[in-house]
Amino acid sequence: MMSSNSPTHALAEYVVSVNEKDIPGDVWQESKRAIHNYLGCALGGSIEPALDVAMRVLSPFTGPATTNVLGRRETVDALHAALFNGIGSHVHEYDDTLPTNYIHASVPVASALFAYAGANTVTGADFMRAFILGFEVESRIGDAVYPAHYEAGWHITSTTGVFGAAAAIGTLLKLDTKQMVWAFGLAATQAAGVREMFGSMAKSWQPGRAAQNGYTAALLAQANFTAGEQGIEGPRGFAPVTAAEYDLDKITNGLGQQFGLRSNAYKPYACGLVVHPAIDGCSQLKVKYNLDPKQVKAVRVRVAPLVLDLCNKRDLYRELQSKYSIYHACAIGLVRGKGGIQEFTMDAVNDPDIKRIRDLVSATADDSVTEDQCAIEVDMQNGETLKLFVEQSLGNIHRPLSNDFLDEKFRDQAILALPAEHAEKLIALCWGLEDVADAGDMVRLSAP
Amino acid sequence: MMSSNSPTHALAEYVVSVNEKDIPGDVWQESKRAIHNYLGCALGGSIEPALDVAMRVLSPFTGPATTNVLGRRETVDALHAALFNGIGSHVHEYDDTLPTNYIHASVPVASALFAYAGANTVTGADFMRAFILGFEVESRIGDAVYPAHYEAGWHITSTTGVFGAAAAIGTLLKLDTKQMVWAFGLAATQAAGVREMFGSMAKSWQPGRAAQNGYTAALLAQANFTAGEQGIEGPRGFAPVTAAEYDLDKITNGLGQQFGLRSNAYKPYACGLVVHPAIDGCSQLKVKYNLDPKQVKAVRVRVAPLVLDLCNKRDLYRELQSKYSIYHACAIGLVRGKGGIQEFTMDAVNDPDIKRIRDLVSATADDSVTEDQCAIEVDMQNGETLKLFVEQSLGNIHRPLSNDFLDEKFRDQAILALPAEHAEKLIALCWGLEDVADAGDMVRLSAP
Repeated sequence: MMSSNSPTHALAEYVVSVNEKDIPGDVWQESKRAIHNYLGCALGGSIEPALDVAMRVLSPFTGPATTNVLGRRETVDALHAALFNGIGSHVHEYDDTLPTNYIHASVPVASALFAYAGANTVTGADFMRAFILGFEVESRIGDAVYPAHYEAGWHITSTTGVFGAAAAIGTLLKLDTKQMVWAFGLAATQAAGVREMFGSMAKSWQPGRAAQNGYTAALLAQANFTAGEQGIEGPRGFAPVTAAEYDLDKITNGLGQQFGLRSNAYKPYACGLVVHPAIDGCSQLKVKYNLDPKQVKAVRVRVAPLVLDLCNKRDLYRELQSKYSIYHACAIGLVRGKGGIQEFTMDAVNDPDIKRIRDLVSATADDSVTEDQCAIEVDMQNGETLKLFVEQSLGNIHRPLSNDFLDEKFRDQAILALPAEHAEKLIALCWGLEDVADAGDMVRLSAP
Repeated sequence: MMSSNSPTHALAEYVVSVNEKDIPGDVWQESKRAIHNYLGCALGGSIEPALDVAMRVLSPFTGPATTNVLGRRETVDALHAALFNGIGSHVHEYDDTLPTNYIHASVPVASALFAYAGANTVTGADFMRAFILGFEVESRIGDAVYPAHYEAGWHITSTTGVFGAAAAIGTLLKLDTKQMVWAFGLAATQAAGVREMFGSMAKSWQPGRAAQNGYTAALLAQANFTAGEQGIEGPRGFAPVTAAEYDLDKITNGLGQQFGLRSNAYKPYACGLVVHPAIDGCSQLKVKYNLDPKQVKAVRVRVAPLVLDLCNKRDLYRELQSKYSIYHACAIGLVRGKGGIQEFTMDAVNDPDIKRIRDLVSATADDSVTEDQCAIEVDMQNGETLKLFVEQSLGNIHRPLSNDFLDEKFRDQAILALPAEHAEKLIALCWGLEDVADAGDMVRLSAP
């Protein structure tokens, strides 16, 4: 009935049969970094209006409470928790990115898994295994349809995320191969989300809905709710319908050997990637010279031309604008030495020290500077000029964030939702996740 | 902010501003036929396994009960009712069809509306107005993207149905223009469903989910959950992303004057359209000659070549096969004079009279016969040969079903779920819907 060379079938067979010991140690370790980074983002976004509105609107339609939403006291059914976790964890766009296909891969998968873990007992090791497999399914389907799919206008994080969530929950539900094939079909037929929504609340709705839809697909498949069996590659399936060109070999090549998690990137700063090198360099100067911002006389930066195309904004009236200003980027680096969520609020925009430096910055486009680089010169009151050239921006594949940096990023976001001691307990749970008896402890501890 | 020539904006503005008196009388009347036909289909599908499984799987996740599902005793929240109504009403594929774009337009819109009406008080007239507008939005967006969208593999009923449901519920929620624009954006970003699922339970899931997602979009928009404001025509919006070619003028041309409902077609028979002329002709012979099937010696039909391509099946092992058999089509017409749901069960397949005639039928492909036609000759034991040529198949735009036929179709399906007297009351409510004080009466009366 099912072709043995069906990618849908091959992927399903892999996911239902892989053991913990089949997953390489470095992938196992990287999954903890991804889960840790995800959880911090979920806490950082847990008080955002998009999440508040969605929870309020849907409250009359949520089922008996079995879990809290991450970072919130409110309890709901697990499918709605998956949706709400997804909105909160993506709303700041501070979550991870796969450089090969621009998928923010953790949100759809982890949002479903944390919802499941809040409502059911699942060990940390099983949670990690499900996360790794969900991430891999999503990443591979994304590689197969990228770039045509993304360029057509699909929000690839949600359209492929629904498969990842289905795979992750499906492994915990112990689906057999046929059921996993159906789960992928049910994912294919619920795959949605267009880039036209970027810049609105609907953007973060999408990966949340993908988490919920993927979770639902797995539940339906478990009950033998049938679906088309070539959901990915069939002539009317996901890849042909949504991508003018695609490469199905990328779904199965190196399956079990190569893992998307190995190239996963974490954002050091809660803003557009193009200004990351400037924040990075200015933060380094701040630390290296224990720099007093009041002593700064002038700042000159040379950046890739794209940076000025996108981020040549000095007068800032909305938080979102501050995330795309090269002047603000330099200022927060020199004043605060970091670029967390709280450096992109109106309070930060109006901070007199940041405001003063923002006006002292001049920026020049330079073709010889890549988008990962930035040349910085800071004139000080004492006549000295501090110089630094960023070769590779922090957070890219050549300069991955350290675990310590991830911890700081976590604390910086968790403080918006939780007492500090809860955050430290959560960090400890993340790093020791393979030995945690009940991954749901993380969910419950995340409630303020 | 919004371009005045934005089709999304123009459609939103129309929907929020149109009055009852702006809707022509014939459209008003046709909406009752569509609602009546829809409700019968929902009752006929209410005991199907796809619906049973979906309701069982999702029962732990449904919110406080505010309405029953159509044709069922179980009560759920309105958003889940929209989903379940959609599965039940489409599962037999006996619902209506728009000949211009192949959309089964009533299911997503009416499934949401009946869910709303079950949980809230809404007059029959408001219900009809919301239905007409939702149907129109869906039909126009469908015309704009058809045929490229459908040929790409999209299940156009669900992908455009989500807009129709959003419009219908949005009018009852009294959204303003901006909110309706957001509702369309939230619909665009949840539009999903691929034809690869045809032949599985996932097929009927899709229009159900569209009803639920469209209803959700309207609720979110009402609470000012923002979305992209060119959801349909924006460069990363619904039309450009899902159709290689599209004509946005079809969204606004003749808005308020031309109505899709005017060309809506209702299926006389619960099977594939291609065998409708054969059932029609054989049923006419059955009635005209008060034909005794035991006296039939041979049956010869000439049909369009496509009919034999798709329906040349004589040995039937599954119900679905009986819906695509030219031999079974002739047999049920001559034996029972109709083709309702109960003519496509295994009981009907194994009925000795039907089985005998099925084996007596020979079918020939004839290029001169259109897909709406069929030439029939029946040799009788007495030496007589009965002949009939079907020029236009019953149910197409030139031979619309009569209200009496719709009533019979309704009863034939309702009997699967309800006592006969309930069915008669429901029929009366449908025909008098403009004067009904609470359209929710139909929902409550549909519970067995």
